[in-house]
Amino acid sequence: MRVAIVGIGLIGGSMALALKENGFADWVIGVDANPEHQNLALELKLVDEIVPLNEAVKKSDFIILAIPVNAAEKLLPGLLDQVHLQVLMDVGSTKEGLLKCIQHHPKRGRFVATHPMWGTENSGPTAAVAGAFLDKATVICNKEETDGDALDLVEKMYETLGMHLVYMNAKAHDVHVAYVSHISHITSFALANTVLEKERGEDNIFELASGGFESTVRLAKSNSDMWVPIFMQNKENVLDVLNEHISQLRKFKSCLEKENFEYLKELIEQANGIKRILK
Amino acid sequence: MRVAIVGIGLIGGSMALALKENGFADWVIGVDANPEHQNLALELKLVDEIVPLNEAVKKSDFIILAIPVNAAEKLLPGLLDQVHLQVLMDVGSTKEGLLKCIQHHPKRGRFVATHPMWGTENSGPTAAVAGAFLDKATVICNKEETDGDALDLVEKMYETLGMHLVYMNAKAHDVHVAYVSHISHITSFALANTVLEKERGEDNIFELASGGFESTVRLAKSNSDMWVPIFMQNKENVLDVLNEHISQLRKFKSCLEKENFEYLKELIEQANGIKRILK
Repeated sequence: MRVAIVGIGLIGGSMALALKENGFADWVIGVDANPEHQNLALELKLVDEIVPLNEAVKKSDFIILAIPVNAAEKLLPGLLDQVHLQVLMDVGSTKEGLLKCIQHHPKRGRFVATHPMWGTENSGPTAAVAGAFLDKATVICNKEETDGDALDLVEKMYETLGMHLVYMNAKAHDVHVAYVSHISHITSFALANTVLEKERGEDNIFELASGGFESTVRLAKSNSDMWVPIFMQNKENVLDVLNEHISQLRKFKSCLEKENFEYLKELIEQANGIKRILK
Repeated sequence: MRVAIVGIGLIGGSMALALKENGFADWVIGVDANPEHQNLALELKLVDEIVPLNEAVKKSDFIILAIPVNAAEKLLPGLLDQVHLQVLMDVGSTKEGLLKCIQHHPKRGRFVATHPMWGTENSGPTAAVAGAFLDKATVICNKEETDGDALDLVEKMYETLGMHLVYMNAKAHDVHVAYVSHISHITSFALANTVLEKERGEDNIFELASGGFESTVRLAKSNSDMWVPIFMQNKENVLDVLNEHISQLRKFKSCLEKENFEYLKELIEQANGIKRILK
């Protein structure tokens, strides 16, 4: 199968690697607006060739959109115009707005909205990782709006990656990811800014930073070109979670101010409940 | 050398393992108030024997206090009363209050205040890890208040663990750790409570959680018996950082509310500055 990957970055590059390795793709066609990324994608053998987008659509059986969610929203309707029997899917972190854009498109059925739940704080072709998706979940949204053969192909592809499939409507997806992904990025960005602000006044503040700090702050390396559009598109849900999070932090603040250490202990023990979820 | 370790948990247990393995300790004497931990420490061969605290002080050359910081503050003056030529050190996460307690103690010089910058979210003897401290930093506070031979011994011990030494006064230490350790724990606890609160209303919210979420929330598993006393003792510094952190989060909130996506991009790019610090 000839697979076109639009956007050879962290996700697109990792998918390219995996689909060539497992034989799902005989030939991987890369599309990328950034000439430096084009060269890197060829050098790193993530793709077999680089061609312009329109040519890629014509030459391929299966097209994977792996670009920032605002770019996907812009491109998707025009891409669907060009598609005949091909299957088109995305891998973006927000879904409601994207699916609204093509709700009434005559080719809506050729598109499958997906979100593989894997990522790192790195970006670009050099961030691609072999075996990235194994044993992770992938979400497929609004499957009833897609053609049966298109859904079958995407499901088969994700199964070759070793992912398990979760079905959800776009609205529920966007709420869920606000809680299990988007808020983590905001807290990391804000934590990085908190300590970087302090660093200006103090030398060597990071000499003492160890694994715990690194763990909570590593997502702050994430790329703004990817994340600003995600926050824009999922604004309402992210604001809901952010308000809840600030109110949880205020409980800690109030415990300290009032020296209410019994309630502080309760809050921590409540947080320990996360052990039920994390292995 | 006969080393007594008071508190055979995450830090004490890991230190016991390392000091036996590298030959610094010929005999490790364990002290622990929890009978279950006493048995585990013997079963896991973290210690050679378990004895009561007073007996341990008499029998050992070097005593390591690895108990919660409030317990250390209570025990330390009485322990110093019993010490003659022995060296006593702690490994706690706060220093200013502890050192004030023994400021005028005639045996002050026998005590070395230290803080090895390593830990995990786990606790108890089963949490002990071999090779835990290698290549990490350890802080020694107010070294000018300790006897030369006591300081030498502690420095030598940390060098056998492969740690590099950082010297700092207690006040500066407590500010630094508020930024690079204590706030990370508060954000993790609060984030866990944010999503656990949501989970009550929604099924399977965690089905989609992946590495990024786990990374920012794993410290929320940390033990309240250890962390409440740390927050109590470092209240003022933690409150300063927490206020700064909440105000950083409010900037993100305001960007979303006002749809000021240019400033949101700036905030994220500023947070990316953490790349300078994290490898």
